Amino acid sequence: MTVPKPYLVRTRLDEILENLREGDAFPPERELAARFGVARETVRQAVHELLVEGRIERRGRGTVVSRPKLVQPLSLKSYTEGAQRMGRTPGRLLVTWENITVDAEVAGALDVSASSRVMHLERVLLADGARIGLESTYLPLHRFADLTRDFDPTSSLYAALRARGVEFGTATERIETVLPSPREAGLLESTTAMPMLLLNRRSLDVDGVPIEVVRALYRGDRVAFEAVLTDR
Amino acid sequence: MTVPKPYLVRTRLDEILENLREGDAFPPERELAARFGVARETVRQAVHELLVEGRIERRGRGTVVSRPKLVQPLSLKSYTEGAQRMGRTPGRLLVTWENITVDAEVAGALDVSASSRVMHLERVLLADGARIGLESTYLPLHRFADLTRDFDPTSSLYAALRARGVEFGTATERIETVLPSPREAGLLESTTAMPMLLLNRRSLDVDGVPIEVVRALYRGDRVAFEAVLTDR
Repeated sequence: MTVPKPYLVRTRLDEILENLREGDAFPPERELAARFGVARETVRQAVHELLVEGRIERRGRGTVVSRPKLVQPLSLKSYTEGAQRMGRTPGRLLVTWENITVDAEVAGALDVSASSRVMHLERVLLADGARIGLESTYLPLHRFADLTRDFDPTSSLYAALRARGVEFGTATERIETVLPSPREAGLLESTTAMPMLLLNRRSLDVDGVPIEVVRALYRGDRVAFEAVLTDR
Repeated sequence: MTVPKPYLVRTRLDEILENLREGDAFPPERELAARFGVARETVRQAVHELLVEGRIERRGRGTVVSRPKLVQPLSLKSYTEGAQRMGRTPGRLLVTWENITVDAEVAGALDVSASSRVMHLERVLLADGARIGLESTYLPLHRFADLTRDFDPTSSLYAALRARGVEFGTATERIETVLPSPREAGLLESTTAMPMLLLNRRSLDVDGVPIEVVRALYRGDRVAFEAVLTDR
């Protein structure tokens, strides 16, 4: 049986990676193609796989070995707690903070009438300064209008909500993979060819009243989700 | 403020989709480019997004509106139960069933020595006959060697394990997005450019003894995961 070339190339790239550490330079494609005696295109496909998996990343004109992915637990805890658990410093950049009317789906999920105004908070999520996600949060304005008074949008929203006495009860999360729009790719300093993890969340408080609807896009090369399941 | 063209095109495609039903023909790219008065490349990018999101799919020489994604609950339940909950008929195609030695990582996760043989079962997962996933399961041979006697590999493995008295206790799942290898893309009747959801699972029984290690690849255009979180 002949082992297919793409498989052989990938295996050899994995061997190269085993001997490199975070931040080390990764050999250029033409050098790898010459070393393995295969077409440049075969190497390019395998290198693209490694980029999408977050094993390597472009830096300037070269390619280097990446940090391990940020593993985000699927839980009612905030992004802050997830990042800190991994020893990363969380941060946020404010993109948009406005009151808007939303489509029937979001209004329904927030249990407000279609004409009500909703607070929309859009932030880039950072881990040690690197852009890892883009989070759009929709909050019922009648309940949280006072956030505009003292909430710092670069800090944890969940901490601010909890400080207001909000108790998170349950959340439903849906996880998909998508490609980003050009605007999203730009905000994430990535490309429209990089697969993203899309997380749609709806959180209810302990009385079953909607707190938020969230649409969060995470760079697929920098983030993984983790869940611990038990038979309840 | 000028709204960027990719955003306008996407909005108009979403409007077109709202008026179409599952299986309906989706207009060709050149017709859409002419109708919107934009470059073919701008339409192609937006159409590619819709393909990756599973809103539309290629069928023969044309493009049609897809079925909604299969939403797979993150739980200790089997694929069978997840598919049936969505009203889809689950199925499996056997690809590989062999006893192998595995790398140190899988051996460690199964709590067997590096030289022990492990049962490897690789199956394509079907929903109403469509290929939606590729599942590789690794089982400790010393515990489950007798599966070779009477297990039908096109049926539910979890049902067979439960019938043997195995009680699932906890599982840890890690979810990422990756691009498939050429082999994986072929088995899933997809392409190496289609983002996939990768799920790595390790299941323990109620006594904390490893049952299985699973590497499952799901077509990103056909599958979403759902989790219900509570503050425990």
